[in-house]
Amino acid sequence: MVITFLSDFGLQDDFVGTCHGVIATIAPDAHVIDVTHGVRPGHVLQGALVLANTLAYMPAGVHLAVVDPGVGGSRRALALRDREGRLYVGPDNGLLLPAAERFGGVVEAHELANPEYSLQPVSRTFHGRDLFSPAAAHLAAGLALEELGPPVGADELVQLEVPQPEVGHNRIRAVALAVDRFGNVGLNLRREHLDPVELAAGMRLELTCRSERFYAVFVRTFADAPRGSLIVYEDSYGNLALAVSRGSAAQLLRVEEGGEIVLDLAVR
Amino acid sequence: MVITFLSDFGLQDDFVGTCHGVIATIAPDAHVIDVTHGVRPGHVLQGALVLANTLAYMPAGVHLAVVDPGVGGSRRALALRDREGRLYVGPDNGLLLPAAERFGGVVEAHELANPEYSLQPVSRTFHGRDLFSPAAAHLAAGLALEELGPPVGADELVQLEVPQPEVGHNRIRAVALAVDRFGNVGLNLRREHLDPVELAAGMRLELTCRSERFYAVFVRTFADAPRGSLIVYEDSYGNLALAVSRGSAAQLLRVEEGGEIVLDLAVR
Amino acid sequence: MVITFLSDFGLQDDFVGTCHGVIATIAPDAHVIDVTHGVRPGHVLQGALVLANTLAYMPAGVHLAVVDPGVGGSRRALALRDREGRLYVGPDNGLLLPAAERFGGVVEAHELANPEYSLQPVSRTFHGRDLFSPAAAHLAAGLALEELGPPVGADELVQLEVPQPEVGHNRIRAVALAVDRFGNVGLNLRREHLDPVELAAGMRLELTCRSERFYAVFVRTFADAPRGSLIVYEDSYGNLALAVSRGSAAQLLRVEEGGEIVLDLAVR
Repeated sequence: MVITFLSDFGLQDDFVGTCHGVIATIAPDAHVIDVTHGVRPGHVLQGALVLANTLAYMPAGVHLAVVDPGVGGSRRALALRDREGRLYVGPDNGLLLPAAERFGGVVEAHELANPEYSLQPVSRTFHGRDLFSPAAAHLAAGLALEELGPPVGADELVQLEVPQPEVGHNRIRAVALAVDRFGNVGLNLRREHLDPVELAAGMRLELTCRSERFYAVFVRTFADAPRGSLIVYEDSYGNLALAVSRGSAAQLLRVEEGGEIVLDLAVR
Repeated sequence: MVITFLSDFGLQDDFVGTCHGVIATIAPDAHVIDVTHGVRPGHVLQGALVLANTLAYMPAGVHLAVVDPGVGGSRRALALRDREGRLYVGPDNGLLLPAAERFGGVVEAHELANPEYSLQPVSRTFHGRDLFSPAAAHLAAGLALEELGPPVGADELVQLEVPQPEVGHNRIRAVALAVDRFGNVGLNLRREHLDPVELAAGMRLELTCRSERFYAVFVRTFADAPRGSLIVYEDSYGNLALAVSRGSAAQLLRVEEGGEIVLDLAVR
Repeated sequence: MVITFLSDFGLQDDFVGTCHGVIATIAPDAHVIDVTHGVRPGHVLQGALVLANTLAYMPAGVHLAVVDPGVGGSRRALALRDREGRLYVGPDNGLLLPAAERFGGVVEAHELANPEYSLQPVSRTFHGRDLFSPAAAHLAAGLALEELGPPVGADELVQLEVPQPEVGHNRIRAVALAVDRFGNVGLNLRREHLDPVELAAGMRLELTCRSERFYAVFVRTFADAPRGSLIVYEDSYGNLALAVSRGSAAQLLRVEEGGEIVLDLAVR
């Protein structure tokens, strides 16, 4: 059975390795795939979006995700099942829901409350190790979901607020959701948001970011633009994104996650 | 058979991947778990403490560890067995001993001297690849420890000096041992050091670091303190640590590994 | 079957994890070894050299490599076989050739053109996920190379230009090819380049870098030089390299990849 594992633990410390050790102790035959551990520390929204974007590329299995700034507090710990049978383990802070929604939504939820399936005593600061990894490993080893703890109503789960863009005919107000290693900037704009707008390859746009203006071109891929030019493109997950051909859009725009970007389409 | 692997190689270069390749060539069925490769370059003490802290969470197997600033010099290369049967491979610079001591201490030690179980010629700068990974892989594939080379007395092994805290009734002089990705600062204070001291949740302390003073509260977890406040807590490995709730203690205190921190408990 | 995987994707984002998911979906039994994902973004030459240096330490299998600044443009996507039977998958930008040449050269090449063995629709910006990983996984699962697409002549493949050193009797003009985590600087000088030159352990050299001069000693390993001194040594892949014993040569010389370094041997 596959366990996919996403977190904000980074790879500098031993957090991820320790969770791998716990999983291998409980479920020696589980195949663990690290989705990423580079989510910005505590950024639940970013983690939720990465999980949702990537899940379709993962084998169905147990999907463990830990971005958990409320660890040790009163937030619940969860195991979920979606309509297609994928299982999820993580904190009840909205992290798991956008992914589960792409697979038909949550049909069963349980609180991780059965001490038999956690490492005792559960520490107050590392539930990834003591609570979530053991639950994921036991599920991968065949445990039934309901053994983990009492059921929770799907409507009681904590929801995330995903920032919505404002899309007018000529102007779009968007937010930078993610900056990747190449300096590409993902926006909160999906293909469906752009229905009212006519975007065609080669079209010029004006961007405003931190009160500065930039010209950009809408292209299909990096290679369609001259080196160094700012481009708008649909990324491989179907989101609109900004890039500089063989450069860094994040650096050019000096934008970080959460920053506002306005796109003006009526450029002559 | 499981091989756990800890080093200061980082993941930017090919050091870790190359060792994985060597292991997979010799022991195709070994299951390698990367504990971490983010130990600060050459910091044997940090590597030793991470290995000791995490080993209890790893399946028993071969525990490969390489933090080796003396590579190519006269330091010995070792394979050890502890009282519980776990095997260790790494340099004779103290790196392996704190972990082995938590499992009953070293009961058998051999020098890696048999050329049959290394990659020939052994380079002078990458023993991780040529000497340690092959030895670990051969052990995982079933080789007997004594085949690797001549025995070494456990009392001849190089010991590490772990800095000890000074614990008075009202004042503790401690050292920062580790700073993690979240900016949490681990101290050289374990639960047993605190026996002479009365620490209760909610207690206020005064910290002195680089001649600056800070107020802190002793709490059980991050969520028990308001956002931005400096806290002292027992981390998930049983060490006292400093954190800023949803912030970075290392940044607030401007402290690095090795820095001194004084805790005053008689705060009114 | 082993798949080795090298890229410039980094580990901060989900690129690598997503490719692992795609591979595990197609070839659940493949054993994926990550060589490194820390190649500098878009640096095809660095990726090619790391692949060539490390391949001898990897089990024979499918060798997937993606450093692909031309993604989405007109460059071909390739699967190759070398004389010893190793398979390669990656872009046709020279990345794969130095490695294949060390194993007897390319004896068979095919363009990745068969839509049956890619994820449809293939995105324009993430061929690692949609094109290269699926091809590597299908090969690992037993697919014949020629099923992937039409043959390409080995002489039609794009070649990389590897910068050559100028080696005189007393003076060598070299280029920094790589800087690793320890600040060690690899040069474009292999043992064979040094045949006209007499280099003996203990010999002093003068280095010029960015118009600054430095004295260095040729030694066999780090431990042969006093802490802090600049050394020239043959690294574990047989290339000449610069280091500072327990320090960073890159920092001392303020050199980056591509920077020129002149070595003067006639030092008195």
